[in-house]
Amino acid sequence: MCSLPSGFEGAEKKIEIDFTSDGNDPNGLRAIAREHWERILEVIKCQIVNTTSNDYFDSYVLSESSLFVYPHKVILKTCGTTILLRCLEPLAQMAKEQVGLTPEFLYFSRKNYKYPDRQIFPHTSFSDEVAALQHVFPGYSMTYGPTNDEHWMMFFCDLIPPKQRISGKDQTMEVLMQELNPEVMQQFFRGPNFVDAKEMTRSTGIGDLVPGAVIDELSFDPCGYSCNALIDQYYFTIHITPENSCSFVSFETNLPRTNYTSLITQVIETFKPGKFSVTVFSDIESTPGDALASFDAKALERSGFNLRYRSWSEFENPYTLKYAYYTAKEATEDN
Amino acid sequence: MCSLPSGFEGAEKKIEIDFTSDGNDPNGLRAIAREHWERILEVIKCQIVNTTSNDYFDSYVLSESSLFVYPHKVILKTCGTTILLRCLEPLAQMAKEQVGLTPEFLYFSRKNYKYPDRQIFPHTSFSDEVAALQHVFPGYSMTYGPTNDEHWMMFFCDLIPPKQRISGKDQTMEVLMQELNPEVMQQFFRGPNFVDAKEMTRSTGIGDLVPGAVIDELSFDPCGYSCNALIDQYYFTIHITPENSCSFVSFETNLPRTNYTSLITQVIETFKPGKFSVTVFSDIESTPGDALASFDAKALERSGFNLRYRSWSEFENPYTLKYAYYTAKEATEDN
Repeated sequence: MCSLPSGFEGAEKKIEIDFTSDGNDPNGLRAIAREHWERILEVIKCQIVNTTSNDYFDSYVLSESSLFVYPHKVILKTCGTTILLRCLEPLAQMAKEQVGLTPEFLYFSRKNYKYPDRQIFPHTSFSDEVAALQHVFPGYSMTYGPTNDEHWMMFFCDLIPPKQRISGKDQTMEVLMQELNPEVMQQFFRGPNFVDAKEMTRSTGIGDLVPGAVIDELSFDPCGYSCNALIDQYYFTIHITPENSCSFVSFETNLPRTNYTSLITQVIETFKPGKFSVTVFSDIESTPGDALASFDAKALERSGFNLRYRSWSEFENPYTLKYAYYTAKEATEDN
Repeated sequence: MCSLPSGFEGAEKKIEIDFTSDGNDPNGLRAIAREHWERILEVIKCQIVNTTSNDYFDSYVLSESSLFVYPHKVILKTCGTTILLRCLEPLAQMAKEQVGLTPEFLYFSRKNYKYPDRQIFPHTSFSDEVAALQHVFPGYSMTYGPTNDEHWMMFFCDLIPPKQRISGKDQTMEVLMQELNPEVMQQFFRGPNFVDAKEMTRSTGIGDLVPGAVIDELSFDPCGYSCNALIDQYYFTIHITPENSCSFVSFETNLPRTNYTSLITQVIETFKPGKFSVTVFSDIESTPGDALASFDAKALERSGFNLRYRSWSEFENPYTLKYAYYTAKEATEDN
């Protein structure tokens, strides 16, 4: 999100960890003091910039992406060359020491990096990342889409059997966009008419994506934008790298929807990507249920895209995942 | 299929190549003399053992697996430490020089190796294999199932747009079995009552799998079995490594079925694996149509297995793929 002459790695690494309920504080992870979170973020190489809270969770906008803290769940997403996976052991240790909580489920995901050679170990390759994860959490690694083209990777680990977990019935939808329309991206540069980040949220249509959302946004100088939105117990988060050479926008939410097609359509019509992927990861008992039916992959072609590849998986534990990848139709093609 | 004290790599590598129709012989690839095929197989490090032909294609049982030659298609499957991908350039050159044919579609697949360290370059890793393929055929590589557990990989390449191809409307179903029942495997050892390979086909139930099949079989000394079956324009092929430490059986066919569930059930009930995968790769206009509906993944659990993972993909070209992986239920589990 900060401007580098040589291009910025907008694509985030993400972890989500669910914790057991046998802690010693009813507020769970939310009872942990900010200084402890700051120490974890130091290890990763990023800082807290903004904070917002509601009855359900704490939201942190970071110098590189976002952190969400629920009583029994943490979601941490960082871009650039941050070293996300270095937090695994200190984070588990902090949760244990501070509030007596133990991880019961872990999920890691990212798309392929644009600049893989700049990443710092263990983010040097997916197999290095998997080795680092396996060292702490034995689990499974999966790849969606062609491994030698645009693709998306995940690792997940059930530390206790699904039936004994307190977590579950959860869903995550993510749209990862590249090669975005330069005019749309221009809105995320601080030009002569720049007012503030709040005005960027309003004028770009981000404020209209989910009615009623409380949005905590950040504008970077000279360009770039991040926001965390709080909608009762749900969030969405957007991170924008607007430079033409490396433009990237991510939209992620845990909002429950039986069908995400219209939300995805809104997102791609707001940002106008040249190519994008959609993933839905859902518990079979969550609102979308089986991810296979969670969005209409063919219908998204009507917004001017070709569906290049789609995939769906079901795991023995109650999770399903759907992935679809699109590229914009050429102007000469019949839309 | 031959016995090694240290275990044999039963899992095959496979390529399927479709050729254009603009050749200079109506018999296409079938017009190529056997000595030319033998030279290709020399490069890979295997030999022809048996040959059978019908009106539609030529079938070769090899010292390591099988070769099928249709007028415009070749299917080559080899196990052990054969160096299958070394044939790519000589095979394309032979087809061009001998009968004026050019590849239009290529497909490579295999499961993860049991003994990856014994493989010879470029079979040393999937990324080495993909690099070797890309050098000749630019295409996509895909992985199904956890990359750090049992999984299955493929690479495919459309050299000319699907609509201009003569090939298509095709399907391949494959069952790859491991940890097989030792009593079943004992039947593929040449014991004191050994008669011949034909009798092995009959007594083991292989002869009953597809009524009307012309079966060309081979029994190895002291153990192991291969067969190619011809059913008009379709084939099935079975390769058996029966040693307990490394038991492996593959069943592959291009027989058209709207639903493969009963054929797969027959296969797993014949061989009684401890774990197995099923893949169906089908053109959307072929008999199974979309691979998603090509077999009932849940129904196969009724034969005493747990469905551990399943996945389905659709590519922009008209192919779909479904993969499912099973392990036998423990004796103590409720079946």
